[in-house]
Amino acid sequence: MNAQETFAAVDVIATKRDGGKLTPAQIIWTIVAYTRGEIAEEQMAALNMAIFLNGMDREEISQWTAAMIASGERLDFSALRNPAGARMPTTDKHSTGGVGDKITLPLAPLVAVFGAAVPQLSGRGLGHTGGTLDKLEAIPGWRADVSREAMMRQLSEVGAVICAAGGNLAPADKKLYALRDVTGTVESIPLIASSIMSKKIAEGTAALVLDVKVGNGAFMKTEARARELAQTMVALGKDAGVNTVALLTDMSTPLGLTAGNAIEVQESVDVLAGGGPEDVVELTVRLAEEMLEAAGIHGADPAAALKDGRAMDVWRRMIRAQGGDPQAALPVARESETVYAPADGVLVGLDAMAVGVAAWRLGAGRARKEDIVQAGAGVRMHAKPGAVVRAGEPLMTLLTDTPEKFQGAKEALEGAFTIAPESSRPANRLIIDRIA
Amino acid sequence: MNAQETFAAVDVIATKRDGGKLTPAQIIWTIVAYTRGEIAEEQMAALNMAIFLNGMDREEISQWTAAMIASGERLDFSALRNPAGARMPTTDKHSTGGVGDKITLPLAPLVAVFGAAVPQLSGRGLGHTGGTLDKLEAIPGWRADVSREAMMRQLSEVGAVICAAGGNLAPADKKLYALRDVTGTVESIPLIASSIMSKKIAEGTAALVLDVKVGNGAFMKTEARARELAQTMVALGKDAGVNTVALLTDMSTPLGLTAGNAIEVQESVDVLAGGGPEDVVELTVRLAEEMLEAAGIHGADPAAALKDGRAMDVWRRMIRAQGGDPQAALPVARESETVYAPADGVLVGLDAMAVGVAAWRLGAGRARKEDIVQAGAGVRMHAKPGAVVRAGEPLMTLLTDTPEKFQGAKEALEGAFTIAPESSRPANRLIIDRIA
Repeated sequence: MNAQETFAAVDVIATKRDGGKLTPAQIIWTIVAYTRGEIAEEQMAALNMAIFLNGMDREEISQWTAAMIASGERLDFSALRNPAGARMPTTDKHSTGGVGDKITLPLAPLVAVFGAAVPQLSGRGLGHTGGTLDKLEAIPGWRADVSREAMMRQLSEVGAVICAAGGNLAPADKKLYALRDVTGTVESIPLIASSIMSKKIAEGTAALVLDVKVGNGAFMKTEARARELAQTMVALGKDAGVNTVALLTDMSTPLGLTAGNAIEVQESVDVLAGGGPEDVVELTVRLAEEMLEAAGIHGADPAAALKDGRAMDVWRRMIRAQGGDPQAALPVARESETVYAPADGVLVGLDAMAVGVAAWRLGAGRARKEDIVQAGAGVRMHAKPGAVVRAGEPLMTLLTDTPEKFQGAKEALEGAFTIAPESSRPANRLIIDRIA
Repeated sequence: MNAQETFAAVDVIATKRDGGKLTPAQIIWTIVAYTRGEIAEEQMAALNMAIFLNGMDREEISQWTAAMIASGERLDFSALRNPAGARMPTTDKHSTGGVGDKITLPLAPLVAVFGAAVPQLSGRGLGHTGGTLDKLEAIPGWRADVSREAMMRQLSEVGAVICAAGGNLAPADKKLYALRDVTGTVESIPLIASSIMSKKIAEGTAALVLDVKVGNGAFMKTEARARELAQTMVALGKDAGVNTVALLTDMSTPLGLTAGNAIEVQESVDVLAGGGPEDVVELTVRLAEEMLEAAGIHGADPAAALKDGRAMDVWRRMIRAQGGDPQAALPVARESETVYAPADGVLVGLDAMAVGVAAWRLGAGRARKEDIVQAGAGVRMHAKPGAVVRAGEPLMTLLTDTPEKFQGAKEALEGAFTIAPESSRPANRLIIDRIA
């Protein structure tokens, strides 16, 4: 990518500061010059804040995203064939992040059952939401780093790969995200949407399903903001020729009954074995249907493939292909402490953010990139909203290798659940809307 | 200064980003931590843009200014006595900057005539407005750098000093101004007001008169913005115990008939000799009256002190005290070119910005701090708005040591003046308003 024209950074900043629209040439120059270090961090910080406060329109966001994609390599799966020589359509899922969100683990092999290729490039966790790679690394021997050649071979032979992004995908986004993180400019819909979509589009998939989380445990706290983000990302996908659909899904309470690493792998394996918590199964099946439809594969029955072992079969091959032993025992935390129900009634609320912070504090997550996560740590839930509980029954089990962490986790959980009279029923809607 | 509490920079940024009010503790911490390098430049850039777009209220600006003053030393002239042992009240002037604005040169000695001490700490020019120190440096032998001890002695014995600020006055402002300059956050009234006032208050004067310029050649292009800046600065002065008054004055056309360095010194000497252009005399006398009133010296007649040589006497002693020879010939540009009137009529407009840019391009100003200015370069005007001109008469003389600079200067002056039928009369108001 070359910047065709040269601008003064101050003029670009002033344009957005004064509520103006950035031209395509200004946007390309800005991203190229920033990636090369020719725009200083403080200048990009000022521009980001101006974007945060004055916004970008659909065309600006689309240009901004395209420039970030063009800042690095873009994967191309168009030549992908299965061992029988048939073309494999690629399809991918991205979640904006939530507590207990292990859906990628059963989903990728499930979708591959039906002949799609699922190149699921994932990240590690930071803060209260877990990372897919952290979870899979709880499996003995499993490696997140896969070469491009090995990735292509695995996609062809197994159909699914979950691995670290690696390489040089949207380097402008990497640099920009680190800057936004320290300058209070993360929660901007144009910047979030372009960040997510530049990475996903650079990853080369032809179809994309976005799981946009809404609620206290999610990045977007309100349905209105989540809807705006989803609409923006769907439009960006279409602008880039990627068939994109979004679901708005609830993140007021954790997904499933586990938040951690090894315990989330175990729950995923339960789902692949035809069991597992109802909400995890429902969302996995629905996202699989959307990913297959988006990839042009019609009439598939993902629910059946969970029940009859086909998805489990792909899972095991996928784990083995990356050095993991799918049959090996998973790590178990050395210490545990139980939280009991204080009263009889119906559990009507179990706060996703509180559970996420508790799991993080127990050692399942990291505060800084360089922190090491505990494979066995986390929170195991024994009841979800809607369940009838009795005083003194276990509500949650806290798991860690380092017992001094229990105190902080329990503080995070203070006021995190609500028990109401037995006549109460929480209004749970897992899938709130679909945006296409 | 110590930060009593510690904050996360991101939280301070987010408060202002979301339209909130910064607490005094947040402001003090921010300025201290930034001065120490504990807040990164990119974080301060994001905060500045949030301040630019969301503003600060009177209390926040006052705290911000106080924190910048406290980041360095604050001069104290309260013990100042003249050689006869009498207390000398201090009084100071600050101009927001304009083209041909040499007023400080005749003003400081004029005010000192009446027993006030005028510690006029000044800067160098950047861009289209000249710097007071650059002008005085055209005088053979004159030195801008004066030690604190020499400054005190000169104030006591002569009454006036014009010198470089030096030392450690408001170091936070120095750092912040350099950042604002490259991040598009200069033109924010809270940031401009706190920058100017932190320096002036740290300079220790007890009374301050602000000359807030309005118009095309000024920082503030509209009267409304200039008025808001003036009101903000007067309020900040009062908050800090400095008796502060502001005049709004016209900068749609240059002050006087010269824009440059040596030629502005010569014009100032003309005023000190009882002559000089009417507008320069008017503004010098009016500002002197305001400075003396603000310092509690009533009934003075500055106009008389220009006519009878008392101001010239102080000027000569002031120049000599800093190594200069007030009688020496001033540098003269090696080359000149004349701009002629294209038609008969009344000159109704002579654009200050265009003249300022022309003088700058001729070598009188600098584009970067490290540039060297030409003492003799600049623009000498032969007519000001309101004058009747004849086709072929000289309108301006362009002066430089480097003739290749004429072309750029003439381009800057294209369309810079308007000649109208003789019945026309421009509406000139030099002093627009007074804000106290």
